[in-house]
Amino acid sequence: MSNSPDRRTTMKFMLATTSVGLGGMAAQAQSDLLPSWNEGATKQAIMSFVARVTAHGSRDFVPVDQRIATFDNDGTLWVEQPMYVQLAFILDRVRALASQNPDWRSKQPFQAVLDGDMKALAASGEKGLVELMAVTHAGMTTEEFLKIVSDWLTTARDPRFKRPYVELVYQPMIELLAYMRASGFKSFIVSGGGIEFMRPWAERVYGIPPEQVVGSSIKTRFEMRDGTPTLFRLPEINFIDDKAGKPVGINEHIGRRPVAAFGNSDGDLEMLQWTTLGGGPRFGLIVHHTDAEREYLYDRQTHVGRLDKALDAATLNEWTVVDMKNDWKRVFAFQ
Amino acid sequence: MSNSPDRRTTMKFMLATTSVGLGGMAAQAQSDLLPSWNEGATKQAIMSFVARVTAHGSRDFVPVDQRIATFDNDGTLWVEQPMYVQLAFILDRVRALASQNPDWRSKQPFQAVLDGDMKALAASGEKGLVELMAVTHAGMTTEEFLKIVSDWLTTARDPRFKRPYVELVYQPMIELLAYMRASGFKSFIVSGGGIEFMRPWAERVYGIPPEQVVGSSIKTRFEMRDGTPTLFRLPEINFIDDKAGKPVGINEHIGRRPVAAFGNSDGDLEMLQWTTLGGGPRFGLIVHHTDAEREYLYDRQTHVGRLDKALDAATLNEWTVVDMKNDWKRVFAFQ
Repeated sequence: MSNSPDRRTTMKFMLATTSVGLGGMAAQAQSDLLPSWNEGATKQAIMSFVARVTAHGSRDFVPVDQRIATFDNDGTLWVEQPMYVQLAFILDRVRALASQNPDWRSKQPFQAVLDGDMKALAASGEKGLVELMAVTHAGMTTEEFLKIVSDWLTTARDPRFKRPYVELVYQPMIELLAYMRASGFKSFIVSGGGIEFMRPWAERVYGIPPEQVVGSSIKTRFEMRDGTPTLFRLPEINFIDDKAGKPVGINEHIGRRPVAAFGNSDGDLEMLQWTTLGGGPRFGLIVHHTDAEREYLYDRQTHVGRLDKALDAATLNEWTVVDMKNDWKRVFAFQ
Repeated sequence: MSNSPDRRTTMKFMLATTSVGLGGMAAQAQSDLLPSWNEGATKQAIMSFVARVTAHGSRDFVPVDQRIATFDNDGTLWVEQPMYVQLAFILDRVRALASQNPDWRSKQPFQAVLDGDMKALAASGEKGLVELMAVTHAGMTTEEFLKIVSDWLTTARDPRFKRPYVELVYQPMIELLAYMRASGFKSFIVSGGGIEFMRPWAERVYGIPPEQVVGSSIKTRFEMRDGTPTLFRLPEINFIDDKAGKPVGINEHIGRRPVAAFGNSDGDLEMLQWTTLGGGPRFGLIVHHTDAEREYLYDRQTHVGRLDKALDAATLNEWTVVDMKNDWKRVFAFQ
């Protein structure tokens, strides 16, 4: 393969002139990478940030190895209403395991799940949820859990859209992930959801490999079983990657500060603060669910994905707020 | 830039024939990437494994995204005798902070450090070490700690070699890291040492970015201080990434199983088991310190970096054992 020094120098020069001199043109061409975004201030804010940090010679240039972006998952990359997908998984698992656990019929919070009594379930509170987590997420090896999640995702359907959950990812955000990747960003999911609930499908659906998924976790224990090494999942919380836990999770997993962060709720407030208030060129974005027709309409009053403090902080800190109804040409790929 | 489909097809074809048809020749050429390794069975085992998993069409071919390798740090990538470098840091920090803490003169384990009484220090046990960790590793922000570590590394000198610790990295392993990287591997450090003690210099010295460093950690707390987001380091253990903790840390951070693992002590046993006993082409390697003259000679009888069970396991599981004295042309770059 001929790749002489001369040729390489020429290419380097061409690349350099393209990104500085022809920055505007490059941005124009790249707009095709976000076809599901309507033209307007939101799309412009995203593209202008990416152009500024990627243009050699720009005052705001960020070297490739520092282009770290973090994305919340529930409500930012895929649907979180009427309940978190992971909660739907938990309820389905309890139903599936009920025949092996006859005592659940008369024992809370299991009885509430089996009766479809959401009020009683809510009344069981965090304690109830931890009990449900324990029987659905622990007591098996990591490999067994991966298979359970993968199998469930192929059969489970969202009640409103009647589709597999992995189809309920936001097409504009899928394009944004690809656009960031093409611009040299390494993107991480940073979610309150379970790290091992997301990893089995995040690479296929989002293009995000397992090592770039940060999430909540339970403890595991290494065991040699008949000469075979296993990691056994224990019914004990290890880490909650939500709210003030997100910067902690980011620091623990990534070890450097993101330059861009994307969220949709108060659970993302601290991640957005940690990312954008560190000096230098930074970008914060919040997906505002304003579209009852194509998706959902909610912010300050909801329990799931409440957007209240973070919406005020967005104004204060000049984060970009996506108006789903007006900024997105379509929400899902199938629409 | 011309990069026509025709040209791309030709290049693809050339690449394919090179890796399959000319596999032997390619391996030959690559041997130059390990110039500090003597020719012999050890070097051959490394190169033959890499050739097998990277050659398209090979029965043992591993796709690039699954080429995960994990490296222990202390005793595998750099010197761990006569004490872990991080312990030298702790002792230096206690001395530096002593004037602000006059009570340490008569209070263990601090008194032992200030008197240079290693016997009394050892007697203070794990409890003493945790106390020393608390005052040297906690009570500041992550950014402050990063600066403290970086500053210390520029001034501290190893007592025997009279050089900065970052020069006491094993040149053959630096070459191996580069060789693995050139072969499409993503390499992670998986160390019992502190994750934030390694990150400030791992990229510069090893070419391993912060997000590919896994280690022990203390807890941190997110705080807004006068409008500035900070992560404050708390005097509380979060995770010990050693022994059976290594597979746990690997699963938490990487989320998939390595295909190659490199260690030097019983602390790496479970990581090597987890990596190599999972089916498919796998590679395990142990650095055996057999060179009293150029480095150190130790295995079953030492406290620091004891290699006992893992040496037996190496025979049992056919892991490659590096005989430092005979397999390495040189140990350090300066030799």
